[in-house]
Amino acid sequence: MSRHIFRFGDESAEVAEKSLVGGKGYSLAEMSRLGFPVPAGFTISSGVCRTFLATQTIADGIWREIDAALEDIGKSCRQGFGDEDSPMLVSVRSGAAVSMPGMMDTILNVGLNERTVVGLAKSTGDEKFAYDCYRRLIATYGDVVLGVTKDDENPFEALSNEACRQEACSTVSELSLDATKKLITKYKISILEITGKTFPEDCNEQLRGAIHAVFSSWSNARALSYRALKNIDDNLCTAVNIQRMVFGNRGDKAGTGVAFTRNPSTGKKGMYGEFLQSAQGEDIVSGVHTPKSLTEMQKIVPEAHASLISVATQLEAHFGDMQDIEFTVEDGKLWLLQSRSGKRTGAAMLQIAIDLVDEGRLSKSDAVMSLEVSKIDELMHPRLDPKHGAAPICHGLPASPGAAVGVVALSSSEAVALADRGLTPILVRRDTSPEDIDGMKVAAAIVTERGGMTSHAAVVARGMGIACITAARGMKWAKDSVTFGDETLASEAFITVDGKSGDVYKGKLPLLPAEPSDSFQTVMGWVNEFRRLKVRANADTEADARSARGYGAEGIGLCRTEHMFFAPEKIALIRKVILKLGDRDDTLQKLLEIQSADFAAILKVMDGLPVTIRLLDPPLHEFLPKKEDDIATLAVALGCDISVVRDAVERLAESNPMLGHRGCRLGVTDPDLYRMQVEAILRATTALRDAGLNPQPEIMIPFVSSAGELKLLAELVAAVPGETVPVGTMIELPRACMVADQIAAHADFFSFGTNDLTQTVFGYSRDDSAKFLPAYVEQGLLRADPFVTIDRAGVGSLIELAVEKGRSNKTKLKIGICGEHGGDPSSVEFCHRTALDYVSCSPYRIPIAKLSAAQAALRRDIRK
Amino acid sequence: MSRHIFRFGDESAEVAEKSLVGGKGYSLAEMSRLGFPVPAGFTISSGVCRTFLATQTIADGIWREIDAALEDIGKSCRQGFGDEDSPMLVSVRSGAAVSMPGMMDTILNVGLNERTVVGLAKSTGDEKFAYDCYRRLIATYGDVVLGVTKDDENPFEALSNEACRQEACSTVSELSLDATKKLITKYKISILEITGKTFPEDCNEQLRGAIHAVFSSWSNARALSYRALKNIDDNLCTAVNIQRMVFGNRGDKAGTGVAFTRNPSTGKKGMYGEFLQSAQGEDIVSGVHTPKSLTEMQKIVPEAHASLISVATQLEAHFGDMQDIEFTVEDGKLWLLQSRSGKRTGAAMLQIAIDLVDEGRLSKSDAVMSLEVSKIDELMHPRLDPKHGAAPICHGLPASPGAAVGVVALSSSEAVALADRGLTPILVRRDTSPEDIDGMKVAAAIVTERGGMTSHAAVVARGMGIACITAARGMKWAKDSVTFGDETLASEAFITVDGKSGDVYKGKLPLLPAEPSDSFQTVMGWVNEFRRLKVRANADTEADARSARGYGAEGIGLCRTEHMFFAPEKIALIRKVILKLGDRDDTLQKLLEIQSADFAAILKVMDGLPVTIRLLDPPLHEFLPKKEDDIATLAVALGCDISVVRDAVERLAESNPMLGHRGCRLGVTDPDLYRMQVEAILRATTALRDAGLNPQPEIMIPFVSSAGELKLLAELVAAVPGETVPVGTMIELPRACMVADQIAAHADFFSFGTNDLTQTVFGYSRDDSAKFLPAYVEQGLLRADPFVTIDRAGVGSLIELAVEKGRSNKTKLKIGICGEHGGDPSSVEFCHRTALDYVSCSPYRIPIAKLSAAQAALRRDIRK
Repeated sequence: MSRHIFRFGDESAEVAEKSLVGGKGYSLAEMSRLGFPVPAGFTISSGVCRTFLATQTIADGIWREIDAALEDIGKSCRQGFGDEDSPMLVSVRSGAAVSMPGMMDTILNVGLNERTVVGLAKSTGDEKFAYDCYRRLIATYGDVVLGVTKDDENPFEALSNEACRQEACSTVSELSLDATKKLITKYKISILEITGKTFPEDCNEQLRGAIHAVFSSWSNARALSYRALKNIDDNLCTAVNIQRMVFGNRGDKAGTGVAFTRNPSTGKKGMYGEFLQSAQGEDIVSGVHTPKSLTEMQKIVPEAHASLISVATQLEAHFGDMQDIEFTVEDGKLWLLQSRSGKRTGAAMLQIAIDLVDEGRLSKSDAVMSLEVSKIDELMHPRLDPKHGAAPICHGLPASPGAAVGVVALSSSEAVALADRGLTPILVRRDTSPEDIDGMKVAAAIVTERGGMTSHAAVVARGMGIACITAARGMKWAKDSVTFGDETLASEAFITVDGKSGDVYKGKLPLLPAEPSDSFQTVMGWVNEFRRLKVRANADTEADARSARGYGAEGIGLCRTEHMFFAPEKIALIRKVILKLGDRDDTLQKLLEIQSADFAAILKVMDGLPVTIRLLDPPLHEFLPKKEDDIATLAVALGCDISVVRDAVERLAESNPMLGHRGCRLGVTDPDLYRMQVEAILRATTALRDAGLNPQPEIMIPFVSSAGELKLLAELVAAVPGETVPVGTMIELPRACMVADQIAAHADFFSFGTNDLTQTVFGYSRDDSAKFLPAYVEQGLLRADPFVTIDRAGVGSLIELAVEKGRSNKTKLKIGICGEHGGDPSSVEFCHRTALDYVSCSPYRIPIAKLSAAQAALRRDIRK
Repeated sequence: MSRHIFRFGDESAEVAEKSLVGGKGYSLAEMSRLGFPVPAGFTISSGVCRTFLATQTIADGIWREIDAALEDIGKSCRQGFGDEDSPMLVSVRSGAAVSMPGMMDTILNVGLNERTVVGLAKSTGDEKFAYDCYRRLIATYGDVVLGVTKDDENPFEALSNEACRQEACSTVSELSLDATKKLITKYKISILEITGKTFPEDCNEQLRGAIHAVFSSWSNARALSYRALKNIDDNLCTAVNIQRMVFGNRGDKAGTGVAFTRNPSTGKKGMYGEFLQSAQGEDIVSGVHTPKSLTEMQKIVPEAHASLISVATQLEAHFGDMQDIEFTVEDGKLWLLQSRSGKRTGAAMLQIAIDLVDEGRLSKSDAVMSLEVSKIDELMHPRLDPKHGAAPICHGLPASPGAAVGVVALSSSEAVALADRGLTPILVRRDTSPEDIDGMKVAAAIVTERGGMTSHAAVVARGMGIACITAARGMKWAKDSVTFGDETLASEAFITVDGKSGDVYKGKLPLLPAEPSDSFQTVMGWVNEFRRLKVRANADTEADARSARGYGAEGIGLCRTEHMFFAPEKIALIRKVILKLGDRDDTLQKLLEIQSADFAAILKVMDGLPVTIRLLDPPLHEFLPKKEDDIATLAVALGCDISVVRDAVERLAESNPMLGHRGCRLGVTDPDLYRMQVEAILRATTALRDAGLNPQPEIMIPFVSSAGELKLLAELVAAVPGETVPVGTMIELPRACMVADQIAAHADFFSFGTNDLTQTVFGYSRDDSAKFLPAYVEQGLLRADPFVTIDRAGVGSLIELAVEKGRSNKTKLKIGICGEHGGDPSSVEFCHRTALDYVSCSPYRIPIAKLSAAQAALRRDIRK
């Protein structure tokens, strides 16, 4: 049988696993064991909570254990729970294995009733204090256990405000004894009126009610949504800590506070904290009083302050991390209520890690493991000043992080025009397509009515490192205005976009800039010592490549050649090829020259590093307009009959373009375009080599589903005169995974295209799945969006199979992934575990991918 | 080293494998060994051909073997190849392991030149005969080896015609000796003029040229396309048979003929054949002469006739099948040139199998193995009378077999109107959608401009058992007419459609009806003794179910409930649900009543047999119109604002509907429709049970990709009051295969949806893949259309994996497949091998599936 009760308070305390006693219970026991001053108490395990939530009861045997533990605490302080002469009060506090700050309930001062309050008054000699404690208990108990608050209205607030008004007090603790007693009666009446229940005068009933309430708070709405957000297991459950009350609210030499061993905003060394004199913990949280600094605390309770400094230093050394310490001072004496690793900003995280390593208190590898990947993301993008205080007008999916202030641009051309006028456009569209690329280039952010986390807008925005919000709820785009909820805005109206939260605000809000610091460089240096996976970038242009190299890319894993075709002079040429206008050879020759220059520019920036160039992938209809108006315009521009364009549009139209005539299928049915691209790559390579550089292109054939396709196209590449370049393939179809051994025979490398693989493995169109994926996540059918984090059971298993099969036929096959998953920590860990050689991601996510790779390698080492 | 030369002609002949010596070589050796009269000769193996095709040379060593063999033949008949006094002539004939009638070349009379022709004249005493042989050699050699025919124009024809005109002969063989000699000279001049080459007078050079030419003919265009059509391996190559000439063209007691041991059209017992007096083999093929019956032959060459009857009977007994025998009579003596299993019609195939079993010459299992599946298909559909003689106006994909004569209907409503007027409409469309269903129901055939073998039109047509042609080349549909190549036809014009060949004809051509005969029933009885796989039908309506039961279905494997929704009264209701018009509960209640009646009707027809009902599968936008006009019409009909319809159409639109919001995703996001369908099924079941029947419904959840989805929806089904019905799932997504063990925990059965699985595994949209699949097949990248035959390496491997995983968690899991592959022989064999429990296919393909299942089981037994 597992243990239910774990005692603490002196050096005999037993330290159990966090999963059993929670973070708070763990720290209380650990501090007790180390001999620090902790009020005596005990923890009821999370297992008891789990049973309680399932059955709504706690076994009699456990109650007996609780009562016995309670009696022991009383003995240790020579008081008794419910004793009318020398009453011991207790706090009942939640504490799960994972920190969920403020999400669950806490009840203080349990053990007071009409008789024990008299005893407390006598034994402390402070009647006012005793009744204030009693009032506090009734207020909390009425709210948390008995549920007096209805429709967000707490009846005690009105009563307290009225009492304060009558005695002209600013807070209810300042009321006279008499007024406090009256208020207590009013609270009790209010409870009876609203709930039909009497406040329990029986201390044991109080305790039982409090424990039930704290356990139940594990499943309150707030806690549930927090866990969903943070991906915390609902089955973890909370422990409950019962602890003798020490009073920060009795006399002047008392108070309560919070201290950090280092500055949580900057990471700067030295104590940082707040102290509230003559107060209980809840007073600090309520924010009604203004707390004092620790320096001021030193003047009020010098001994307690000295103890705090000493204890804090020892605790940080013991736990090896910056600590966040809750304490109370009673009669000038320090008592510790909790110590845990403190939350911190990204900048502080780096500074603290570096300092701890410098101080010899943390190894580099432990420092790397301690870093939170999401905090790195925060460091890469400008962000909204958290003090802005404005309410969003619209909320959507946080598709690309960062924040931006700019003016509404309702079309790509408008964005370009606004940028030309020196304004900062934010592109606001129903959705985006490759034709919007010019507008996207000049935009500071993108907001779309439709789409999802991996829609065109999202992918491009992340690639460019600009903020993006997709699937904006309540947004309605029109040609001449856009409506966000109740707000209708015209072009050029100022908005602020927070890509991290998914919020859109009206007007201009203050931003804080991103700046990769020295500490960032230092930490990335450590990261590079531990990781095995190489990290490349997805980059389609010279500018992308420059950015990638700046962020430390070790090559380009995916250079999409079709994006190059959308520049005006190029799209005209490719359209002539598709529409069979003019001399085809001549047009292809012109395209060849332009592409060759594009490739040369990218290869030059990435000199000495591999650049994987993917040959044409999208179906050809993507290069043609769809609407009748645009078709007519194009016909005029090309000087051909409208029927030529219309027929081609009809001929090329597809029901499911994702599964259509694209990728290597284009190379099979019409090899000229592929041949032209290969020539362009080889020409660029030769030119750079002649100029003394060291270009490293790799040619990648997309959408292969059989060995025959790759063989045919690898032969096409080999037949183009020039130097020999490695040829590999995207593995992005289930069939390619199943026959990876056969495909490997013709491949120098594999690159998993996990976006398309996820689409085909699940049968999810990423352009359409936003309609049902949210319901899937809500109903627990998906743990995470599979377009963000690789689905291990399905997509992951197929990747493992393909790696095994591929290497069974070619031991040294180089294997990587490109696509959105390359920058996702969990997916990077998967890639490490599956023995891939590299991941490729947006330039801005390179540091995240590198850190994830290092952590994966270290975690792996630990497991060994 | 492998053998190159295999001799035959007497009982010392050695019988080698067909893959080495081809079918003809095999039969010549076998007949020799049995002591039948075969002119002496030898076979050059297909291996020599393979090397020749790769290198364009035949090794000197092999030539020496050939010359030695030739010398031996000469000795056996006391003649010499090239001998000027007593010249031996030889035939050089192709012969591959698989019959490719008329696709490759044959050269007779090799060994004649200006000197040996004189010797032949002397030794035979027939100068006219000798020169006619010489003329024949030059004609064939000039054409086949030297290539005088340019642009389909053979220069010899004009010369021969001129000569015949001058002597008033009907055929060139009747020319005078003098005219024959002059014609020979003219042939030679013509060869020189056209090719620049001299006809070789050196006999050895003639032989070498002939052998090269026959080997090369393996790769001629005709042979290549025939093999592509019949799925014959290009690497098989042909053997060459060199054989002493016997002359059917010398004197009256001579001739050549073909005999069948039974009637190839009806299967009726007794010899059946043709004999051409005083002729060589080529004269029969040319069709210029009218051959005589075998009865007439008896009068001319009684001894040879008697020999033939005796030999034929023995050959049939020996080979255990109806024989097709080529023979020549020289000087009254019978010589055999080939004996092989005779080609026959479907009706003959059945009759012959039954007779052979009755005669005790074949076991039932061998008889079942001998049946050609494609011939069964022929028996199921009306067919075009092969004697029609008309030229097609258009050719497309043969998407559903059968033939039909009817009038052009350019829309579904027009088809209905024409049918109402008593005409037989053929629905001619750009493509079809579920909205065309009414027109399809009354159509005798369907022709579409777009689509493929598994497009909507094709699938529905096969399900209905009507002819269908898709992707018709050169067809252009318009609202008021349709153009087939040069022919533009208006509504009501008569056309004839041959769904087996894919040809469309103008006007009315004669048809032959299908009628399942007694012999068909007998053979199917045997089939049922051997097969293990159950065969169900895909059927969506009472009429389908009736047809399925008639064809021997052992249940319904796929009943698509959405097809029921397209009836006018139902589509109005489902549209109201989608558009949220009126009282939703009330509308659902009405749908429930209608569906319940539909299910009851189907379950009643299938009483006692399982009926797998699939819950709603297509995305909801399929129930709404797409065009602005239709949207307006619908709004008027429903009495709502047009914006209500337009908004829904926009909201529901999808980029890739195949991968969209469909299948169980509909059940997850909006469970009401699924719940209604389940209620309808249970209500129908209870009603039938109360009426003393034994309904066996099974509920199938489509498009599942995770165990959670199935669990959720199985719980939904379980929560509907009523009797307990098995719940299973379609396995049609790669992810479902990968996690089949988890899914099995919640499934009573699996049914592989191989259409969608093929789409997602390959990334082929079946609506779009017609654009590139033909090129794939042409270039050898695909052996077969994966929508017709299960792709074993990719789709098949995933199915095997899923079966293994599913049964690892639930040993007795019932597993089947539904979809187009269920009626394809190779796919049925795969299903047998993979230990599935059943296949489900179109009602019309049930006999084919059953035969394939029996053959698979027998083949498996043989391998054991």
